[in-house]
Amino acid sequence: MRIIVTNCNTTREMTEEIVRGARAAAGPDTTITGLTPTWGPESAEGWLDSYLSAAAVLDALRTYEGPAYDAVVLAGFGEHGREGARELVDVPVVDITEAAAHLACLLGRRYGVVTTLDRSCGQIEDSLETAGVARNCAAVVGTGLGVLDLAQDPARTESAFLAAAERAREAGAEVLVLGCAGMTGLQRAVGEKLGLPVVDGVGAAVRLAESLVGLGLTTSRAGGYARPLPKGRVWGRPAG
Amino acid sequence: MRIIVTNCNTTREMTEEIVRGARAAAGPDTTITGLTPTWGPESAEGWLDSYLSAAAVLDALRTYEGPAYDAVVLAGFGEHGREGARELVDVPVVDITEAAAHLACLLGRRYGVVTTLDRSCGQIEDSLETAGVARNCAAVVGTGLGVLDLAQDPARTESAFLAAAERAREAGAEVLVLGCAGMTGLQRAVGEKLGLPVVDGVGAAVRLAESLVGLGLTTSRAGGYARPLPKGRVWGRPAG
Amino acid sequence: MRIIVTNCNTTREMTEEIVRGARAAAGPDTTITGLTPTWGPESAEGWLDSYLSAAAVLDALRTYEGPAYDAVVLAGFGEHGREGARELVDVPVVDITEAAAHLACLLGRRYGVVTTLDRSCGQIEDSLETAGVARNCAAVVGTGLGVLDLAQDPARTESAFLAAAERAREAGAEVLVLGCAGMTGLQRAVGEKLGLPVVDGVGAAVRLAESLVGLGLTTSRAGGYARPLPKGRVWGRPAG
Amino acid sequence: MRIIVTNCNTTREMTEEIVRGARAAAGPDTTITGLTPTWGPESAEGWLDSYLSAAAVLDALRTYEGPAYDAVVLAGFGEHGREGARELVDVPVVDITEAAAHLACLLGRRYGVVTTLDRSCGQIEDSLETAGVARNCAAVVGTGLGVLDLAQDPARTESAFLAAAERAREAGAEVLVLGCAGMTGLQRAVGEKLGLPVVDGVGAAVRLAESLVGLGLTTSRAGGYARPLPKGRVWGRPAG
Amino acid sequence: MRIIVTNCNTTREMTEEIVRGARAAAGPDTTITGLTPTWGPESAEGWLDSYLSAAAVLDALRTYEGPAYDAVVLAGFGEHGREGARELVDVPVVDITEAAAHLACLLGRRYGVVTTLDRSCGQIEDSLETAGVARNCAAVVGTGLGVLDLAQDPARTESAFLAAAERAREAGAEVLVLGCAGMTGLQRAVGEKLGLPVVDGVGAAVRLAESLVGLGLTTSRAGGYARPLPKGRVWGRPAG
Amino acid sequence: MRIIVTNCNTTREMTEEIVRGARAAAGPDTTITGLTPTWGPESAEGWLDSYLSAAAVLDALRTYEGPAYDAVVLAGFGEHGREGARELVDVPVVDITEAAAHLACLLGRRYGVVTTLDRSCGQIEDSLETAGVARNCAAVVGTGLGVLDLAQDPARTESAFLAAAERAREAGAEVLVLGCAGMTGLQRAVGEKLGLPVVDGVGAAVRLAESLVGLGLTTSRAGGYARPLPKGRVWGRPAG
Repeated sequence: MRIIVTNCNTTREMTEEIVRGARAAAGPDTTITGLTPTWGPESAEGWLDSYLSAAAVLDALRTYEGPAYDAVVLAGFGEHGREGARELVDVPVVDITEAAAHLACLLGRRYGVVTTLDRSCGQIEDSLETAGVARNCAAVVGTGLGVLDLAQDPARTESAFLAAAERAREAGAEVLVLGCAGMTGLQRAVGEKLGLPVVDGVGAAVRLAESLVGLGLTTSRAGGYARPLPKGRVWGRPAG
Repeated sequence: MRIIVTNCNTTREMTEEIVRGARAAAGPDTTITGLTPTWGPESAEGWLDSYLSAAAVLDALRTYEGPAYDAVVLAGFGEHGREGARELVDVPVVDITEAAAHLACLLGRRYGVVTTLDRSCGQIEDSLETAGVARNCAAVVGTGLGVLDLAQDPARTESAFLAAAERAREAGAEVLVLGCAGMTGLQRAVGEKLGLPVVDGVGAAVRLAESLVGLGLTTSRAGGYARPLPKGRVWGRPAG
Repeated sequence: MRIIVTNCNTTREMTEEIVRGARAAAGPDTTITGLTPTWGPESAEGWLDSYLSAAAVLDALRTYEGPAYDAVVLAGFGEHGREGARELVDVPVVDITEAAAHLACLLGRRYGVVTTLDRSCGQIEDSLETAGVARNCAAVVGTGLGVLDLAQDPARTESAFLAAAERAREAGAEVLVLGCAGMTGLQRAVGEKLGLPVVDGVGAAVRLAESLVGLGLTTSRAGGYARPLPKGRVWGRPAG
Repeated sequence: MRIIVTNCNTTREMTEEIVRGARAAAGPDTTITGLTPTWGPESAEGWLDSYLSAAAVLDALRTYEGPAYDAVVLAGFGEHGREGARELVDVPVVDITEAAAHLACLLGRRYGVVTTLDRSCGQIEDSLETAGVARNCAAVVGTGLGVLDLAQDPARTESAFLAAAERAREAGAEVLVLGCAGMTGLQRAVGEKLGLPVVDGVGAAVRLAESLVGLGLTTSRAGGYARPLPKGRVWGRPAG
Repeated sequence: MRIIVTNCNTTREMTEEIVRGARAAAGPDTTITGLTPTWGPESAEGWLDSYLSAAAVLDALRTYEGPAYDAVVLAGFGEHGREGARELVDVPVVDITEAAAHLACLLGRRYGVVTTLDRSCGQIEDSLETAGVARNCAAVVGTGLGVLDLAQDPARTESAFLAAAERAREAGAEVLVLGCAGMTGLQRAVGEKLGLPVVDGVGAAVRLAESLVGLGLTTSRAGGYARPLPKGRVWGRPAG
Repeated sequence: MRIIVTNCNTTREMTEEIVRGARAAAGPDTTITGLTPTWGPESAEGWLDSYLSAAAVLDALRTYEGPAYDAVVLAGFGEHGREGARELVDVPVVDITEAAAHLACLLGRRYGVVTTLDRSCGQIEDSLETAGVARNCAAVVGTGLGVLDLAQDPARTESAFLAAAERAREAGAEVLVLGCAGMTGLQRAVGEKLGLPVVDGVGAAVRLAESLVGLGLTTSRAGGYARPLPKGRVWGRPAG
């Protein structure tokens, strides 16, 4: 099967990192195709970026012209757009935020999310709430690092994530969720040092997408996620 | 004071209708300036439309070049973008969804929302939830009418709203909220026939915006709604 | 328009202070009339005082014989009586507790309340809960100061409020609510030192009352807030 | 032991009926003393009555001069004042609203409340919520009968309660709570016809009060229910 | 009346301790009969123990052949089986977990539970939640002591409970619940040193059971707790 | 990988049916091993059965002597034992109740569960609540059919499930969950006739178990699910 994995920003290096993580998690018969929006923010950090990103990701899916695919993974942690993608495509859509939470719920009574900037915590909380998996979330904790800073200084990044993870554990988390895409290495380091399971959203979402496809399930068209109505839509102002 | 009222779609007639409603509600010293996005959906009905609309509205605010303003009213009922606008501008931002709910809470123990298509109910529920005012909402009920159908056949529209309002009242609503912009006339008709107060979001939001400005209050920059970080952003693909 | 602002206790100096705050917030066409109960507690601090105050405030409204009015503001923070006043009068009733919370929700994702004695925190929490606006309240924090102590030593008062506000911020508050009436000066001092918006309930309630009146809205008589039934009622034992 | 049972209104016949119910439920060593407020409403139906009643009941307790007592039962279903009485007296205070709900929770997964006028439902819901026992309440249903109508036409009263009880059962109630004081006979009739346990608040509260006294437990003075502060209080306007 | 009090484990000394506590709480006309399961864990500490204990307790009730009884008290704090016992027997069933919480709610706005091992906290939280009394629980705190360690070193036990109680108080608890059976002495010591009411579940449950019996109330057979269906059941593997 | 799938009752035909469903859902490299408890109920319908079943399933896992396995699927819908199994084994444990809900959340805004007897609805609601996935559950609806009746008359079974599914849809469900094990055929029939996605718990759990194993994740040992303490345990009375 083929899974489209959408980056939520325009930074191709991050798409590549996400695709590497997705491939490492995918089954042997799964083909991962990365999709980078042609517009939007170079990194999504905050609400304005997130809404811009949502429109750009939807546009990228809408205008995709590659081979047929079986599922979509939205690889922006805490970013918007999930429900719109479910309206747009006829295959299952899994967002890495909810995916990580779903698996985390299976591994302990309470989980915690460790993310980048503190300003992202609210978006993540809201995203978990509406996805229906916030009940067992003990805390969402920021590290103070920006999305594009993560790869700059691996030792500082690891140290910041460990400190934030410790706070999540004190709040009751028995399982950790990495609240950002493209952090595969960090998952192992944090998990080993803390002795807690660490769930990476990209891997979780790929597996959940494969599960839905394997079970022949796709998004309900009854109610909330009916197909978009035909109408005039203009996708952005001229970039030039 | 000047309040910018943003339509969430590209239909100028609807902007004008919204502006009329806003002016009718505004105080004598308030100037209302309507803002129509230059791109986005011609009407926002569903999640995809809503995310597209959010980016377009933010872009319209970002590129606004008119006279200085004191507050922003976002006139898309149940549509996204609210938090992004709060990051973007330095003046208070009031969304008509939350505004109507805030006032409705002051008028009865439980309120109900009557909106257009059933597919919009979920968005409205989520919007009320994250705005912090869902607790006393008894029901969100759709009429089955599309946004652009509302003005086509006033008798049918009124009849559909009355039927939906009846269902909201049976669910416990003591106050009604009109869950769409540009419906000023409907407010009076529904209210009189049902004997319940009916809150229109545009009027409510204009009054709340005036209140915040009058009290010298604006959005907190601590935490969730800090200013957007400087970075590269591209606002949409070339329209041509 | 005329707004009646009721003090919740019998201390006339506090009524005057509240009226000053209300006038500062009101629009140019609004007349503020202060109302001091002729019986009840000299300050309301705790549940017994609050219930005594509720009956006394309702009695003051019931026996009011001044000029006609357009709205009532109940200026006891966290005190009871709100729903009874809605039954009693035919104009909008706004309680400063809920009013402050409604505006605070528009200014940040989470707000906190800073109040007088710790024993009042529970009442305020319950009042916010039933008003439907507790969801985004991060904390209600006491300063340890009594209501009548507030004006005694302004420096100590400000210092105590700043300390409590700091605790609210650590709990996630991005906006502060002053949980007591008659504190207009404090609002500015606390806001400037902490860099957070500070909402005063009296000003918020006056503005919300003006908004409701301006929009032609008043309390629903369907369900919870129907007019009191005609019956025998005795309002208190002989004071002599 | 002696338990004071306070009527919430000034109607002595109702006090007597309540005292009969309390005596039927009490243990052999318990003396029941009825207390009728000397002021307040002749029946409590709605918020205004409830707040007036709360002050009058607190005043009756405050000025009580009879023999020493071991506990207080507040026999107004859904009426206010509970927390104030806890501040005021040094013995356990049990409100019949919460008492019935506590016992009902032990008898089934969900309970329902059947009460008098529909306008009382909201008060009862709020009272259960703040008492901490609303979670398993499936419904609060009104019969449309006023408090003083209950004894007028027993057949009509029973029929109205059966109809309301049926609605509660359809909403999931496995246990019923009689949402009014002074209805001991009704308990048996409704229970037998519906085949559900029916809890009467007065009996429940008497037993809970005896339990607390027997276990040597009384209200915590830490936090919410500290003793009232010494200060000037005037309890009502001259009745003459 | 006769109340069966079931230990949740096979340790007879603990049954005796529990019976002593039950007798101290019971009324003069109540006979307490202790019941020790013939199989199960020697102490219940964690989920596996709890589920094993639930089956063993149900089996002990099912095969009980002593004199007729009027109520059952389940004396395992936070342990499973409550609803199964309600299906099985025709008399009221009261679990000490919920019993303590019900009484605690009557004594303060928020209560806290102090229990043995930290691993038990989750079970207790879930048990309170489904019993419908979690709303006013401020915290469940472990002492780090195992069930069978409690009697080993009374001074250490008291000290550990005091420290945990202090944490519960800081979280807002105004009343304490002892989250384990067989600790009657501790109740007094902790209460006096902290100045808070301390509720012991065994005493609370005995009193609530007496109350239900005295009021002629028993478990509803409508819905959740209908009698077990006749069918083949095998209660455990050969112990030999 | 090898996954152990445990039936919750002693009926081998049902184990075989479950295993068939599990194999149909599993990936090509997964071996499914069915496990039937040697004791317990012949079908689990109600709380007593469920607690008996929980102990029997844990005993079956504890004494399992077959080849090594990588994950456990607990195939009793709404039955207890989940957390005990997580303590007991060192591999991931997935319960079909939570598994179906997790996948259902990805397919629509609200899901509904259709199960066998009405008496099971409460258990399922509690199980979803503590698993952290109840938020988006619109309804749990019974069909009135017993577990062992399901295979007796396929036409009646299908008809009963369709009627119950219709009720779930009216309550807002956009996705259906089959609330019983061993119903693979029903999934297709119900889904096609209603036009909604239908999730079968066994298939969902197998896929989630494969996902966790594939991602190298297993149950957290920090906090709630630490290994059982070494101690004396007797697993049931002599069967003879």
